[in-house]
Amino acid sequence: MSAKNLKPKPESQRVGFAIVGIGKLSAEQLIPAIRTGQDAYVAALVTGDVEDTLQFSRAYDLADDDVYHYDDFEALAQRDDVQAVYIVLPNSMHREFVERAAKIGKHVLCEKPLASNLEDAKAMVKACKKAKVLLMTAYRIQYTPHHWEAKKTIAAGKLGQLKVMDSIHTHVEPDPTVWRLDEALAGGGPVMDIGIYSINTLRFLTGLEPQWVFAQGYQPKNDPRFAEVEESMSIMLGFEGGLIANILTSYGAQSVSTVHVLGDAGAAVLDPAFAYRGIELSIRNDKAQVAPQFAAYDQFGLEIDHFAQCVRSGKTPYTPGEEGVQDHRIFEAVYKSARKGKRVELKRFDGQDVFRGTPPKLPK
Amino acid sequence: MSAKNLKPKPESQRVGFAIVGIGKLSAEQLIPAIRTGQDAYVAALVTGDVEDTLQFSRAYDLADDDVYHYDDFEALAQRDDVQAVYIVLPNSMHREFVERAAKIGKHVLCEKPLASNLEDAKAMVKACKKAKVLLMTAYRIQYTPHHWEAKKTIAAGKLGQLKVMDSIHTHVEPDPTVWRLDEALAGGGPVMDIGIYSINTLRFLTGLEPQWVFAQGYQPKNDPRFAEVEESMSIMLGFEGGLIANILTSYGAQSVSTVHVLGDAGAAVLDPAFAYRGIELSIRNDKAQVAPQFAAYDQFGLEIDHFAQCVRSGKTPYTPGEEGVQDHRIFEAVYKSARKGKRVELKRFDGQDVFRGTPPKLPK
Amino acid sequence: MSAKNLKPKPESQRVGFAIVGIGKLSAEQLIPAIRTGQDAYVAALVTGDVEDTLQFSRAYDLADDDVYHYDDFEALAQRDDVQAVYIVLPNSMHREFVERAAKIGKHVLCEKPLASNLEDAKAMVKACKKAKVLLMTAYRIQYTPHHWEAKKTIAAGKLGQLKVMDSIHTHVEPDPTVWRLDEALAGGGPVMDIGIYSINTLRFLTGLEPQWVFAQGYQPKNDPRFAEVEESMSIMLGFEGGLIANILTSYGAQSVSTVHVLGDAGAAVLDPAFAYRGIELSIRNDKAQVAPQFAAYDQFGLEIDHFAQCVRSGKTPYTPGEEGVQDHRIFEAVYKSARKGKRVELKRFDGQDVFRGTPPKLPK
Amino acid sequence: MSAKNLKPKPESQRVGFAIVGIGKLSAEQLIPAIRTGQDAYVAALVTGDVEDTLQFSRAYDLADDDVYHYDDFEALAQRDDVQAVYIVLPNSMHREFVERAAKIGKHVLCEKPLASNLEDAKAMVKACKKAKVLLMTAYRIQYTPHHWEAKKTIAAGKLGQLKVMDSIHTHVEPDPTVWRLDEALAGGGPVMDIGIYSINTLRFLTGLEPQWVFAQGYQPKNDPRFAEVEESMSIMLGFEGGLIANILTSYGAQSVSTVHVLGDAGAAVLDPAFAYRGIELSIRNDKAQVAPQFAAYDQFGLEIDHFAQCVRSGKTPYTPGEEGVQDHRIFEAVYKSARKGKRVELKRFDGQDVFRGTPPKLPK
Repeated sequence: MSAKNLKPKPESQRVGFAIVGIGKLSAEQLIPAIRTGQDAYVAALVTGDVEDTLQFSRAYDLADDDVYHYDDFEALAQRDDVQAVYIVLPNSMHREFVERAAKIGKHVLCEKPLASNLEDAKAMVKACKKAKVLLMTAYRIQYTPHHWEAKKTIAAGKLGQLKVMDSIHTHVEPDPTVWRLDEALAGGGPVMDIGIYSINTLRFLTGLEPQWVFAQGYQPKNDPRFAEVEESMSIMLGFEGGLIANILTSYGAQSVSTVHVLGDAGAAVLDPAFAYRGIELSIRNDKAQVAPQFAAYDQFGLEIDHFAQCVRSGKTPYTPGEEGVQDHRIFEAVYKSARKGKRVELKRFDGQDVFRGTPPKLPK
Repeated sequence: MSAKNLKPKPESQRVGFAIVGIGKLSAEQLIPAIRTGQDAYVAALVTGDVEDTLQFSRAYDLADDDVYHYDDFEALAQRDDVQAVYIVLPNSMHREFVERAAKIGKHVLCEKPLASNLEDAKAMVKACKKAKVLLMTAYRIQYTPHHWEAKKTIAAGKLGQLKVMDSIHTHVEPDPTVWRLDEALAGGGPVMDIGIYSINTLRFLTGLEPQWVFAQGYQPKNDPRFAEVEESMSIMLGFEGGLIANILTSYGAQSVSTVHVLGDAGAAVLDPAFAYRGIELSIRNDKAQVAPQFAAYDQFGLEIDHFAQCVRSGKTPYTPGEEGVQDHRIFEAVYKSARKGKRVELKRFDGQDVFRGTPPKLPK
Repeated sequence: MSAKNLKPKPESQRVGFAIVGIGKLSAEQLIPAIRTGQDAYVAALVTGDVEDTLQFSRAYDLADDDVYHYDDFEALAQRDDVQAVYIVLPNSMHREFVERAAKIGKHVLCEKPLASNLEDAKAMVKACKKAKVLLMTAYRIQYTPHHWEAKKTIAAGKLGQLKVMDSIHTHVEPDPTVWRLDEALAGGGPVMDIGIYSINTLRFLTGLEPQWVFAQGYQPKNDPRFAEVEESMSIMLGFEGGLIANILTSYGAQSVSTVHVLGDAGAAVLDPAFAYRGIELSIRNDKAQVAPQFAAYDQFGLEIDHFAQCVRSGKTPYTPGEEGVQDHRIFEAVYKSARKGKRVELKRFDGQDVFRGTPPKLPK
Repeated sequence: MSAKNLKPKPESQRVGFAIVGIGKLSAEQLIPAIRTGQDAYVAALVTGDVEDTLQFSRAYDLADDDVYHYDDFEALAQRDDVQAVYIVLPNSMHREFVERAAKIGKHVLCEKPLASNLEDAKAMVKACKKAKVLLMTAYRIQYTPHHWEAKKTIAAGKLGQLKVMDSIHTHVEPDPTVWRLDEALAGGGPVMDIGIYSINTLRFLTGLEPQWVFAQGYQPKNDPRFAEVEESMSIMLGFEGGLIANILTSYGAQSVSTVHVLGDAGAAVLDPAFAYRGIELSIRNDKAQVAPQFAAYDQFGLEIDHFAQCVRSGKTPYTPGEEGVQDHRIFEAVYKSARKGKRVELKRFDGQDVFRGTPPKLPK
């Protein structure tokens, strides 16, 4: 009954974050995750509407002067207790705020996709390098016990030689006014918002980079939601040695998220593969289907704690900016292929996990 | 992107709780649930070791003078912002603290089982009645969408006439020093700690009270964990109209939690039935197996929000003290039957949901 | 493309069976199983209505003189190609036909339950012993890869020490005229017809015999189906070392068949446990849930092939008459306990698999 | 206990089949299915090796003169009891035997794929038309309750507007000497043998024909199994209204068979989708996952019984030759696209179920 060893640890041992962009994701997932995690705490909020955010921040026990307007972002420079910022803004605003954060010497965790286009993504990496601050792309899937178990199973050769892969990530986006459907803010449609999970997870699980892309999409003419971005996209990715992946993504179809990685000696299946809770992994062969079990975890908490640990240690995050840049290379090729109706070759990157940094510590 | 409608609401609109007893359940489940819920907030902590609790409370942004020693519990009387206390202590301490809370006019949410014996449980109900404060037994299972969907399905007759029921709730308690294995503190073994879920859930799902009990248990001679309490108990409950339930509970067996309610036209199956996360409900007949789907929820949050709403409205909680008393009647009969090796008759309570109060509002 | 190694083998290498009792089970399960199996073939049919059976036998390519009336059963003595009989009659007729078969020197495979009461069951074993013919009780569950995998897992200690067990076997018997509801023909209700699966499977999986029984049943007053036999029965079985099992069986409830065997290091779960097709086994602990996979098989085919192999080799079947007798001892105790409302002690049998013979060869 | 209404019906009421090609599929699936079905019976076998087939045919109670050599196929003309032939030969032999069957006036059920190329497939349809015999392509998936339930759910609009589809069908073909890996005999690789299930089932479920194809395959250089045919193929199919399907097939990867049909209001998921036994269908939306349940059935039995009913009634089978021809059009486009690395347009067929005949009667 001693309270001595209870979590969380005192703030003095944790890394203070400013959350930049206070919307549903911040309020319902990220801030609760930080507040029930181990290595980070919420030190400040940065918002477009200070007044509205105050009532929210008070509910979370923050002082009123912990809330900043976007325009006053640079005031964070004075806050020694803010060591990192978490950018949770529309894609097209990522570059501006990452660059402003770099300038005032704050480490940056940035939501995926890293930017709204490849050029911006590259510029962000450059800015952070120059300022000697860490930049991490927030790929929560690369920090969970389930997905790491799948990756390790593959790396250990338990599926044999990989032959084919398949991933589906769809859901219905009902609100035509959401910024994700505005090309100027988002840079693209479901490919960049949810298809990114399929692309990024297959890259993560195999440690490989695709060499070519074929894609075909659909953008209905009479649906106000899809005036600017695609509704659906079907993507084929080719890897070294004939390994091929099929990917399906849509803002117009019932929620499904699956991953199948098939080798000649076994299969790894994640279904659901990308849900916030309840990921299920099955490792299968002719003899048995094995479903590894893990203690409950918060995906966002694991991802944020990893970044906080990197801030303290100075190590490169497992998913640095470069990892986010590579997805943008693939997005460009996807859209180009969809326009031209033919295969597009990608820049070659050989080797394993070429863009990744220090592996995260996984929960026991 | 407006932060205006984000949750949680300001504290001024929520009910302040003092958490009495700061251990693993408080730290890992209850406090996070309150802090990410809607209607409650943590205003104070009451603990046996203020020093140890301070580092914990600071991590949660509480002021140092929000932490009280058990001995100073009555100081909460001065705290207008503390409207309710949540008792999270060993069973044998429930009565003392419920009575002390009643005396200073605080409403009480008390962990299950309500007490360590029937007599104490009845005394607690009496004390709260006299003091005109609300008393609620913290049965999280009676507040979730999954279990309510099962209850409504049964009430609507979709399973036909109920015929037989079965429930298993087991897990391995590895630590011989835990208070749950100390009879003076716990009042009994797995029957009262986890078997209670099976008993209480079958009572909840059917709305019926059992009329007789048969039970047989096992207490190994050479296992230090079970020097004082049973390791396992098998329980048979008889209801009106020939409906019989089998229940199995153990501190010595691999974690399993299931409920089967079988009627002549269908079956309701919960598996896992009692886990903190990932409850699965299946309504089955010869034509189809239907698994109702719900948005993610926090079981403790729903339970605590219900009590906070009752505190504001003055309505009787859905699981008041009387609901907890009835489980103690059944525990007494279980232990008596196990000792005597024969059926024990229970006091008759006819009618539906005879001990329950205002139904909770379920999340959409 | 060579037909040389195709199955089935020629009849000359297989054991000829006379099927005694031509109903739904014979027609839809047993005869197709024999005809698609390896070691047996249908050489004759014995029936109460030769005329009706002829059209059926012709559809199965049998000659008209392969069909016998019950009265002419002894004519099988002349049929050298009939080495065994399979008794598929109402329970109360088992004894008569097993004794008649023994007299004419035919080996006997007898449907479960072995008889309609303990006395008959014992007499049948005695008669076959005396006549030096094999007697096997047709427990299909003791011949499948899934149930054997569970048994081996338990025997290898992978679940640790066994602590508690639970089994449910229910279905709705809609037809009030069926012989299974006629006590004179059946000897009892669901306990003996489907509860037998729960009892027998837990005995098989653990290799242990129960030491005591408690049971309570229900027989509705106004349901014509249950004028003579119970509708439901709840059964508690006590084994050595405090291991307890709960069993639930009913002719009035939606089809469910489950087995849970729980140890301190793991659990074996079968669900469905007793279906003709689609058995699923899960071996679980905190690290993983493993579902062993097997090639498709016919449960009846495996059981019958085992008996045919015993006929050829002269070895004792894995489930001889004695195995069936033991279930009758338990039935007697179940009904006695249900009548008296108290625990009934069983005759003690220590050791492992005390009634079982030569283990079956399992399919690869 | 009367045998009067037992199945199967006498042969005189059933349609006699000659099975042409006696291998594993005939011996383990088709003949048992016919023998336990309702409307067909095995009247003759046609084989390349009469001697080897005799021991097999005797085990199945056939007379020795019911076995014919391929060369003597025309002798079936004299057999009035043989009304239909079932062609179970390597793909490249289909045309010859279908044409020979048509010449002697026998109706033809032909295994899938209908032929080894589009030209042969068309010729077979023409030959049967001219001879006025029925020709059916043996697509077992178009005859099961599970797949029909999915089709009806889609047709009733319960998934809303269809948006995207995905199907995987893979297994490891270990034997380099099997005719399926010989291009002269098979006409192609996994696309035509197992990918055909994905293509054909998506066509069946939606009732639509694809308008374009993109495909990329892989044929390893150093694997003797894939000297002549592809190991894997990834296929994208475009339908009217922007509906896109991803298909993955391989002879080199662990057995998986799935179908996802996703609409804006729901999803239909089959997993496994194409196994001989144990098909599981799930109809999903945000409120519930519904798994329709059906009595056990034999897929081959249903398909063959349908054809036998057509033979008796003279109606066009649900999957006539034309249905098989259309898959060959798609195969041609798949291979062409894979060679050229770009989209290939298909001949347009508007309307619903344009190639299909009389729907089958489904089992209750």
